[in-house]
Amino acid sequence: MSNPGTSFPSTAARDKTLLEDFATLSAFGATPGGGVDRQAATPADAEQRAWLHQWLTARGAEVRYDGVGNQFGLFTVTPGAPYVLTGSHLDSQPLGGRYDGAYGVLASAHAAHRAVERCGASDASDASPKYNVAVVNWFNEEGSRFKPSMMGSSVFTGKLPARTALTTTDPAGTTVEAALREIGTIGDYPGPDVAAYAEIHIEQGRDLENKGVTIGLVDATWAARKYQVVVRGEQSHTGSTIMADRRDALFGASLLVVAVRELAEQSTDIPLHTSVSEMTIEPNSPVVVAREVRMHVDLRSPDEALLDSAARKLAESIPGIEERASVTVEQVQTHGWGVAPFPAAGVELAARAADELGLSHQTMMTVAGHDSVNMKDIAPSIMLFVPSIEGISHNEGEFTNDQDISAGTDLLTGVVRRLMSGALDGAR
Amino acid sequence: MSNPGTSFPSTAARDKTLLEDFATLSAFGATPGGGVDRQAATPADAEQRAWLHQWLTARGAEVRYDGVGNQFGLFTVTPGAPYVLTGSHLDSQPLGGRYDGAYGVLASAHAAHRAVERCGASDASDASPKYNVAVVNWFNEEGSRFKPSMMGSSVFTGKLPARTALTTTDPAGTTVEAALREIGTIGDYPGPDVAAYAEIHIEQGRDLENKGVTIGLVDATWAARKYQVVVRGEQSHTGSTIMADRRDALFGASLLVVAVRELAEQSTDIPLHTSVSEMTIEPNSPVVVAREVRMHVDLRSPDEALLDSAARKLAESIPGIEERASVTVEQVQTHGWGVAPFPAAGVELAARAADELGLSHQTMMTVAGHDSVNMKDIAPSIMLFVPSIEGISHNEGEFTNDQDISAGTDLLTGVVRRLMSGALDGAR
Repeated sequence: MSNPGTSFPSTAARDKTLLEDFATLSAFGATPGGGVDRQAATPADAEQRAWLHQWLTARGAEVRYDGVGNQFGLFTVTPGAPYVLTGSHLDSQPLGGRYDGAYGVLASAHAAHRAVERCGASDASDASPKYNVAVVNWFNEEGSRFKPSMMGSSVFTGKLPARTALTTTDPAGTTVEAALREIGTIGDYPGPDVAAYAEIHIEQGRDLENKGVTIGLVDATWAARKYQVVVRGEQSHTGSTIMADRRDALFGASLLVVAVRELAEQSTDIPLHTSVSEMTIEPNSPVVVAREVRMHVDLRSPDEALLDSAARKLAESIPGIEERASVTVEQVQTHGWGVAPFPAAGVELAARAADELGLSHQTMMTVAGHDSVNMKDIAPSIMLFVPSIEGISHNEGEFTNDQDISAGTDLLTGVVRRLMSGALDGAR
Repeated sequence: MSNPGTSFPSTAARDKTLLEDFATLSAFGATPGGGVDRQAATPADAEQRAWLHQWLTARGAEVRYDGVGNQFGLFTVTPGAPYVLTGSHLDSQPLGGRYDGAYGVLASAHAAHRAVERCGASDASDASPKYNVAVVNWFNEEGSRFKPSMMGSSVFTGKLPARTALTTTDPAGTTVEAALREIGTIGDYPGPDVAAYAEIHIEQGRDLENKGVTIGLVDATWAARKYQVVVRGEQSHTGSTIMADRRDALFGASLLVVAVRELAEQSTDIPLHTSVSEMTIEPNSPVVVAREVRMHVDLRSPDEALLDSAARKLAESIPGIEERASVTVEQVQTHGWGVAPFPAAGVELAARAADELGLSHQTMMTVAGHDSVNMKDIAPSIMLFVPSIEGISHNEGEFTNDQDISAGTDLLTGVVRRLMSGALDGAR
């Protein structure tokens, strides 16, 4: 990989290349409203994966796929050594934004390439780094086509069996395995030996923008509880069935949606985010009272005790709903996580790298789940944020300024170089 | 069609044939739970249409299809004369019952055939009736696959342009025209000249069963108002978006479902049936706040003033919902009908026919819409009900006793014979 004598591109030229690449990437699955629709293992996802494959290969990386479609680009400068892994996900929500995930993968690709270029420089102090570097594009972080979300990193970190992931079906009945084979990005690579992990992402909140700060250093995750709820009633005729005889699952589900929102409305001191955003209604006919509604309930807070109390209140509201709508409600927690810290040494390392670049920074928690939330459990991990304008996310209007795109990539480069030197060895 | 010298089958033999035919018909699209799934122009609908075609042809009827898939079986005993039309619909809801519509078509087929057999009897007073008789299987009465419901009879009676019906698509994007061509039951028959119309149907309520009465003579329809409602919010992240920034269309829709139900809960003196049973949620992802929910609202009452007042209250509740959920709500009435009478002379004719057979009867209103509600506006029409056990309908558990199946068919035969003699001429 060494490339002695190369003169490095200027900062302005590097930024220009990065932004041009981001524009190219944003064209895959582009929507008229300025966003993207490239759900996991769709044709648009296949296109962007092929483009990334080509981008990485052209710069000397070897591209490999593991058994659940995670895409790795391995830059090997010290043969036999473990890898610093850096990445995020290219898949999007339907009508999602251009930045969510994709920015992190592209920034990682550029950061890894820049770090490797530095290894070849005559003045490089890191000509023979302790670790190699690899870029990762995790499969199906969004979880819109195939559930659950963060699928690829969950399998990689041993939280989800590969077989479970591969046999998961989308609403049309296509399995993950069939979809991955269709787009040809599935393999038998077991994944690299990971020395450390770094990820950058848009904040998806307003905090950095409101405070005029460029970089968020994530020190912990909010706690979350996710539930699958099934409301069961009975089919009947919407016209002729007398009201007293109705067992209306959609009425029951609606009462539950309102109850879930009221949990948040009642929590004024400490933030509590609650939502129901998906329902499957059977039979979903305009003239048949619904017999069943399946829905997801999502509760999140930085305060685990508050979250426990909200979950308790929600459970307590169910008998009243069952009685009023003459339905039964079954609630099962499908997954969740506590308030979990990222290693303090990683936050400190990233803060020093930001200082060196003159970038303002602050520590903050992440509300959303990210692949780094999985990775931090198996390797020292660093999670970085750049601002999202007005906090708009999972929306075509998602936007981050070009200078923040560039600054974040510069910072990730600095972080990756430090990680390659072994600066976070032993951190927990 | 005359068949002199034939001896008629015994009552017991006729009932047995009817019930055997009903069992055969119930096998098309049969579901494990004892119901049927044969939505309009699906393979199961094609099978039952082919079976009916064969049944009618074997008994001397000529089968024709009009331009929107209505299936007619013409028994011509008096060439050149108009037809008494009798029928209902074979299509069902997904997971519907065996009786809704299908019973009416089969009873009509048997009644028409029996009436025609009588014409050939040596002792028949109606050997040369004034009118012929035709059986009709209306296309897409249910409206679950293609909206609106009562599509075939709406086109036949000039309430819906044929072009609008033919270009309507199902959720998969298939048009009515393509679906009808696929199953081969579309033609260019303009339909018969209709002298009168008769339909029999299960009650879909508990009234007859509760009172121990065999026959309902429908004297009027409940009034109904049907609305298409669109709730518009904005996509955002279910985790990271702060609650104050959310414009949650599903929360707004749920508040509206509860408000719709409360209209019925508040109406204790006069019945008011209200429901929302179908929603289309965009993007319907577990991690994206819904940007849009489209839904149908259905309000019905025997009292038009009460219905007007309910519609007004519903409209008044919308601004509060818009504010609480930060959404906009657009409500458009798609169709509706007032309290509309069936001709009194027809009710009287059917009562005499029931008396002659020794069947108990009462007048009643229909809450559900039926093809007869369309037909009564273009021809003197008679609508008959038989009991539904526990009023269960649009449900696999729908059930009507065999003796009521037989009694209703006997009555429809008597009604059809009277109509063929011109007994309802000039009635309004």
